[in-house]
Order: sequence, then structure tokens, then C-alpha cells
Amino acid sequence: MGLTRRNFLMRIGQLGGYSAAFTMMQSLGLLPLPEIASEMTKLNLVEGAGTSVVILGGGIAGLVTAYELSRAGYRCTVLEARERPGGRNWTIRGGTKIEFTNGFTQTCEFSEGMYFNAGPARLPSIHRTMLHYCSELDVPLEVEVNCSRSALMQADNLNGGVAVQNRRVVNDTRGHVSALLAKAVNQGALDQEITKEDKEKMLAFLIEYGNLTPDYIFKGTERSGFKIYPGANAQPPVPNDPLPMHALLDADLWRDMLAEEVSDWQPTMFQPIGGMDRIPYAFKTKLGSTVRYGCAVQSIRQSSTGVTVAYTNNGAKHTITADYCVCAMPLSILKTLDTDFSPAVEAVIQGSGYDSAYKIAWEAPRFWETEYAIYGGISYLRQTVGVIWYPSANLFSPKGVVVAGYGVENGSPFGKLPNVQAKLDASRHAIELLHPGHSKDLTKPVYISWGHIPYNLGSWIHRYGDGYVKGYDALLVADRRVYFAGDHTSHLVGWQEGAALSAYRVINQLGARIQNGGQNA
Amino acid sequence: MGLTRRNFLMRIGQLGGYSAAFTMMQSLGLLPLPEIASEMTKLNLVEGAGTSVVILGGGIAGLVTAYELSRAGYRCTVLEARERPGGRNWTIRGGTKIEFTNGFTQTCEFSEGMYFNAGPARLPSIHRTMLHYCSELDVPLEVEVNCSRSALMQADNLNGGVAVQNRRVVNDTRGHVSALLAKAVNQGALDQEITKEDKEKMLAFLIEYGNLTPDYIFKGTERSGFKIYPGANAQPPVPNDPLPMHALLDADLWRDMLAEEVSDWQPTMFQPIGGMDRIPYAFKTKLGSTVRYGCAVQSIRQSSTGVTVAYTNNGAKHTITADYCVCAMPLSILKTLDTDFSPAVEAVIQGSGYDSAYKIAWEAPRFWETEYAIYGGISYLRQTVGVIWYPSANLFSPKGVVVAGYGVENGSPFGKLPNVQAKLDASRHAIELLHPGHSKDLTKPVYISWGHIPYNLGSWIHRYGDGYVKGYDALLVADRRVYFAGDHTSHLVGWQEGAALSAYRVINQLGARIQNGGQNA
Repeated sequence: MGLTRRNFLMRIGQLGGYSAAFTMMQSLGLLPLPEIASEMTKLNLVEGAGTSVVILGGGIAGLVTAYELSRAGYRCTVLEARERPGGRNWTIRGGTKIEFTNGFTQTCEFSEGMYFNAGPARLPSIHRTMLHYCSELDVPLEVEVNCSRSALMQADNLNGGVAVQNRRVVNDTRGHVSALLAKAVNQGALDQEITKEDKEKMLAFLIEYGNLTPDYIFKGTERSGFKIYPGANAQPPVPNDPLPMHALLDADLWRDMLAEEVSDWQPTMFQPIGGMDRIPYAFKTKLGSTVRYGCAVQSIRQSSTGVTVAYTNNGAKHTITADYCVCAMPLSILKTLDTDFSPAVEAVIQGSGYDSAYKIAWEAPRFWETEYAIYGGISYLRQTVGVIWYPSANLFSPKGVVVAGYGVENGSPFGKLPNVQAKLDASRHAIELLHPGHSKDLTKPVYISWGHIPYNLGSWIHRYGDGYVKGYDALLVADRRVYFAGDHTSHLVGWQEGAALSAYRVINQLGARIQNGGQNA
Repeated sequence: MGLTRRNFLMRIGQLGGYSAAFTMMQSLGLLPLPEIASEMTKLNLVEGAGTSVVILGGGIAGLVTAYELSRAGYRCTVLEARERPGGRNWTIRGGTKIEFTNGFTQTCEFSEGMYFNAGPARLPSIHRTMLHYCSELDVPLEVEVNCSRSALMQADNLNGGVAVQNRRVVNDTRGHVSALLAKAVNQGALDQEITKEDKEKMLAFLIEYGNLTPDYIFKGTERSGFKIYPGANAQPPVPNDPLPMHALLDADLWRDMLAEEVSDWQPTMFQPIGGMDRIPYAFKTKLGSTVRYGCAVQSIRQSSTGVTVAYTNNGAKHTITADYCVCAMPLSILKTLDTDFSPAVEAVIQGSGYDSAYKIAWEAPRFWETEYAIYGGISYLRQTVGVIWYPSANLFSPKGVVVAGYGVENGSPFGKLPNVQAKLDASRHAIELLHPGHSKDLTKPVYISWGHIPYNLGSWIHRYGDGYVKGYDALLVADRRVYFAGDHTSHLVGWQEGAALSAYRVINQLGARIQNGGQNA
């Protein structure tokens, strides 16, 4: 049997791990875009030879750690406080019970087949590690439409408060910017910046960029949609009148308009068919009894030879001792436990803050599709509820789950609303502003506020002014025999990819230590 | 049984046609975005009471005409020259035979499940009429990814000829434009255009628009991707260095960069699952023996009472006479037939010109997905073959059909290539420039050149300087008892939506005439 290149690379991968395969592929010139493959290089599996590892938390970081270490011959145990895997990767369906720490309880009443992803809800195509696991674990994906040009934008001081299509804001802005820059270039205002030759090219470019007239005026563009749609009569199509730049500046929709260009929100994006939790449930199937559900950690104690974790299960107290521990719980939980970390690590844990994101979801007939031609994508408002996220699942079916409200509660006007009813009212109001007459079609609300969800107490770690997790570097090294994993120990906070990559880091660190006779290298 | 609003509107629709329902919905304030619904208003079905209509051509225009008129009690016959419905809506699979008028013949060798749409390949969500038929005829749709930020752009004078990701061209351009405009604004060059108050808002906007530094410099942006991808180590992510504006101006990729903003190419877009021809085959099922296949029209003759069409079927000559005729063939074919149109109409037909679009498709392993994270979308090159269109069907499966080459042959460098082998070579070369080492993975080529396809002799009617079909208005009215339909008689040339809307126009004209006792109103 001949050794094809593919077989050869797989063989290399099996023998030397992904990084060997990667180096080989690089040397063969097979990876012309290094940014695509770089994450996959991080896993370097070293034979565990029975080394025992207790993993705290069955979210993506814990599951990936257990899955890979188990394959490499480590004896793994995952302690997961809930009766399900996934952590924040939580898909809510009819019958799901939602209990807040403050006693507020809901039972989701969605119809058969309806669901919503309360936590992560999209997989960018650049998140190669997560896509790798979807492929490896046979989790089928479908396109998640993150941007629709027919989605709406609304501000009280724009267009008389009547929502406008995203295509108008995007393309009218580009038109005005192009016309203004062309004027400056023509006046010679940028002659210090642009060579004479480039000046002509710049002006030709701006006509195309903004869809300007030959004399550099922006008079509107078909890119922004139509007042009179192209038909089959004599009447030619008429594009929408441009929104004035002055009004666009006042409306200040820029952050939302540019959301589609955030590196992790660019097309193409995906979602597992049937709900994001298809991923943790696929891990659950593979891991079997490696994961112990209903096991809430109480304390973590280290000795010179191992780590002992005390936990409760069905009211009974248990302990487990292992050679190493991977702590893949959020710091918001870890800070409430009885631990003996070093003062430096303890300071980082106790000093951490968590944001509390919320989502409100409703079951409704798909008026956004039938009457607004919106299929997936996100509408934005400058209101207390500022985000309406349309479903990408089961497009063209009669009913769907629309997320009318997604944001952070701490410090926001939404978070200051006095009670759940006021929050649901704000959600309905946002729908009514975008889709007049349809707020009454919203049924079966579900309100998730991650700060109130047991075993999370937050949606993601708070990043401060510089965008960094406070004390980040301290979490990247082991505290004696305890390693820290989770998206909060990555540069991709709030993303499953960050959680998976943090697991790769820990696996690599542990492997290096074992190769080094148990000493940190 | 209560009369719900939905039932009420359906009842109105049945009694008075779509335009009555539309007017009612408008008056109820249910259509806040008029551009969305305007096409659906065009159909106004009038009872045909046995009026006979012969329809020439079983493409979308002919099929929609026959389907709607049959429902309204007209006796319809469609003459279709081929043994299949759809016209340019043609999906090619393993076993499909392709015969050019010049004798060049291919038999597609694609594997089971592989296909490519040789003609139309996308349905914009604003094309409400076509989406309506997909819904009505139970043609399941999936998202067609028309834009991927991981797709590539290549020009010999950009980045040393090495392809760059679309995200870099888009976001670096926006960054440079923003920085230049901010400089002009700061210099006061636009003080005549912008009020003092707007000036501050404009500068704040430009920082967000271009992702500039606080002192208005563009130093690159994470929107353009990463040199060092965000991971879970201490190393922070590092964005790509910006492509210089000078180089971007030289590369002149603007038209391709802005393709995603063309009104009919904006997200969200769709394709029928399994191939675009699922639409005509759904009509075929509904229409049954109304469509006669293998019937090539030879002549059209009108009298004061009807229209007589002569055609051949299996070598035998036949005629059919009907009260009216709807001619839904391309003018490129009509101009070759024996007809007795008025001199004015005949002049338009004979004066028409057709473009010849081509596509080249290959079956290949999905290296664009596994190695480049490209899932659907289009790469562009400044080369003889300038478009690489990746499949949106069966993402993540082992193999797919990539369209390496789509454009117009007449007058283009591609069209001047001496033979088919040179065209296939140009196609391979484009793949090799974007995906080095992979041109050898391309197998089972199919080359479609619409100018050489019998019963088409072109892809779409040529539009001249003003963007209009020459003599357009003359085709919008009946030549005595013959009506003209097809995308060439619409403002949406080259789109199935234009064909469907032209059918609506003809149906309405015919209905008005019948209400008027057979006289043109």
C-alpha cells in the first residue's frame, strides 16, 4: 500500500503530535497562511502512562482536557457540578428548568424543535480547534448568518425613529465618506500624503468605493436598497434616498455597524444543527464515566505528591486524590471555594470580576422573514434592549426563536431595570420599534442572566482598560500541581475556542513536566 | 371557526389577488418596508375561462406563466425545445451530457452527489417572487455563502503576488480611507462641508470606522486578521501589518471587493439544496403534460383570432394554434425563427446582442476548507481567470465542486484563449496562484460557455452604456397577440426574479385584455 502524502502526514501526526505534523506541512509549503493553522500546533500529546488527573468543571476546557489526556493514557476524572456537560454551552428547549441563585425559576415552554443557545451561539470559521472537534466528534454544522443586509438599525434621532435597513447605514456611510475624501483630495488638502499618480487612482477608487457620480457627489446608491424595486415594467428602479451624514453621525450606530468586521464575527460562521450543546454532548458520549455529574467541588488541597479535591454528590461528601489537577472552573466559582493556592494566585482569583451577560428569547411566527426578508443576522437599536438576533436554524419554517436582547447587565440601563417584567417589557418594546405590530406575537419568554446562574455567577471574566484579564500571566503556570484552564486563561475570553486552546496549553505543560520527571521545566 | 388576520388576508388574496391583499396589508400598517413586498403586488390573476395560451420556452418565465395562468383557468401549452425544464437554470451532475453548437461535447464525470449550477446559482433574499415559489413548491433552501472574509484576493502587484485574505483588503482599505479623511478634517480642509459640532463627531466616527489610534493613525487592525493568532499563552495576538494604500490602489481590486454590496449579492442569499434545477423540476411536477418537451419552435404566425406556432418534435412537424402566445425564449433564439412581428419589434429582436458567460467547474478535495478556512464565498484575481467560487453545499464533506472561472467570454482575455485546453489551463493557473500545490487536485472539469449552448446562444442580453436593454420598452407591450417574457424584459437581467416578474407583467396584461373584451386596454 503506497504512502500517500495524506497518510504520511497522519502517520507523522500520530507519532509526533500535531506540532510535528504542522512543522512537516510547513516545510512542505502546505500552509501558506500561517494564521489558519497556528492553533492546531499547540497540542503536543505526551504519553501519560497512568498519571492521574482530576479535572474540575465539565465545560469545553474540562471536556477537551479530559478527552485528549484520556487518549494519551492519563487516568482522568472530571467533576461537574451539574447533571449535564457544557457549562455555559447550554441549549434551552421546552422543559428546560432555569433556576437563578436568587430563587427566580422558569421552565421553558418552547414547542417541539425550538431551542436557543443561552451561552455561545456561533462558531467562526477561523476557530479551527472547535471546528476540528465538530468534525472529529461528528457534530454536523450549518451556516450561522451573522450579518444580513436586510436586518434593521434604529435610533430615535435617525429617520424619525423608524428603523432603516442595515444596507442603508453601511452603504450611505461609505458614500458620504468617499465624497468627503474626494473633495479633500481634489482641493489638494492631502497632497502631502498622496503622490500625484496615486491622486488620480485615489479619485477613481473613491467613485467606485462610494458609488459617486463622475463629479464625486454621493447621490445615493442601489447598494442601499430601493424606493422602487427593480421590476419588469417600464418604470426603472429608484434607489433609496441617502440618509444624511449629519443624521448618521447623530445616531452613532458605528459600533453596531462594524460588528460584522470584528475578527471573530466575520463570515463564514457556523452553528451545530439542533443546538450548540451538541458539542458537549458529543464529548459526553466519548468520555462516558470519566465525567461525574452532580459533583460540586468544595475544597482543593495540595501535598507534595498530589491534589485532593473534596466534593459533594447527592448530599454526600467525597474526596478524590490525583497526581495533578486541572481547574477549569470560572474564577467566580473558584473564589468561593476552600483552597490553598499561593498568595499570588489567590490574589488574582479573589481580585477577578465577572460580567453578567443576559439573553431574552421568545418563540414567535417568523414575521421577520415573511414581512422583512430578514433571514438570520442581527438588528441593532440605540435602546435599553439594543440587539435583536434572528435565528439561523430552520429558516423558512413557520415559527422560530428570536433573541430580543443580548448584552451585559452590570452597569447597563438594562441591568438597572427593576424586575424581570420590566426586562421582558423592554424586550417587547425593541421588537415593536423594529417590527411594528409584532410584539404581541412574542410568546414563551426565557430570560437568562448569567450572573444569577449557579456554578457560573457570570458570563465571562471582566477585562479592564487594556483589554486584558487582570493577573492573566499568573494563571498560565501551575500552582504546584494545579493547572488553570478555561477561556479566562486565553486571549479569546468568552469563546469556546479560547477554552479549547487553554486546554491545549495545560496538556502541553503537563506533558513537558512528565517528560521532565514531574518537575516544572 | 374564527377569522384570524392571517386567514383574512389569505381570503382577500384568493378573492382579489395579491394586490388586494397587499393594499389591505398596507392599510393595516403591516408593510413598513415597501420595497420588500412590491414585487408580490404585481400579480393580478384574472379568470381565464378557457382562453388558450401557447408559451414558448420552459425556462423560469415560461414556467411561472404556465403555472399561474393554469391556476386561473387558462388552457396552457408550453413548448420546450429540450428534454428538461429550466432553460439556463441547469444543474450539471455526473452523466450530464453537454453539447456545444460547434460540436464540442462533454459528459460530466462528477461523483455521486456532486453538482454545479451552470446558470443561476444564488437566490438573494430580496428576490421575493422566487423565494415565494420555493416555498409554494416545497423546494428546500440552504444558505449560499456569497462572501467569506477568508476568501482570497490576488494581484501580481500586491503583496509580491501572494494572495491575501479578503478581510485584509476590505479592512485595510477602510483604515487608510479613515486616516486620510481624519487628516483632512483635522486640517480644516472640509470646514465648508462639516459643521463644528459634526467635526468632532466625524473624528470620533473615523476612529471607530478605520480602527485608528487616538491620534488618527491607521496602524493595522485585528479586523484584517492576525500574524499571531489569539491563543492561550502569554504571547498576545498580533494583527497583520496593513497592506499599503499605494499597493491597494495599484492592485485595483475595488470592483471585486465591493461585489458583496451589489444589491442582489448582499447577504442573506440562498440556494436550493441539491441544485438550482430543483425549482424547474418542482414546476415540472406541478405542470405535468402542460409542458411538451423536445419541441423546437420553427415559426410564429399571427391572425386576427389567434397565434399559430410551428414546431418540430422527434423530427416531425407540428403546429399549435392558441388565442394568445407568450414568447419566453431569449431573443438570441427568437431572431433565428420565422416570425411576422411588427417592424418595430423585429428591429429590436434583430438588433439585440447577447453576452456569453462561461463557468469552469472541477471536482476536488476541499483543500480550501481544510487548509484555508474558506467555506463558500468567492476569491478574486486580476488574472485571465478572475473568479474562484467555492461551494456552499455539503460544507465539511470530503469533496466538492469548485467553480474556477466565471465571467463573460465576449471581448475578454479569457474569451480570446485559443481552445478549451488553454481555458482549463488558465483555470488551473488561477487555483495554483491562490492555493499553491493544489491545481493538481482538480479533476473532472466541466466547461460551460453559454454562447455555444443550443437554444440559448448566450447567457443574458447585452446592456449598453446606460445599463438598459436596447428597445426595452418595445418588448413590454404585446405585438398583437404575442407577449414577451423573460429576464431580458425586466430590470433584473440575468436573474430568475426578473424572469418571474416579467411573467407577472404578461399575466396582468393578458388579464386586463380579457377583462377588456380581448382588446388591449
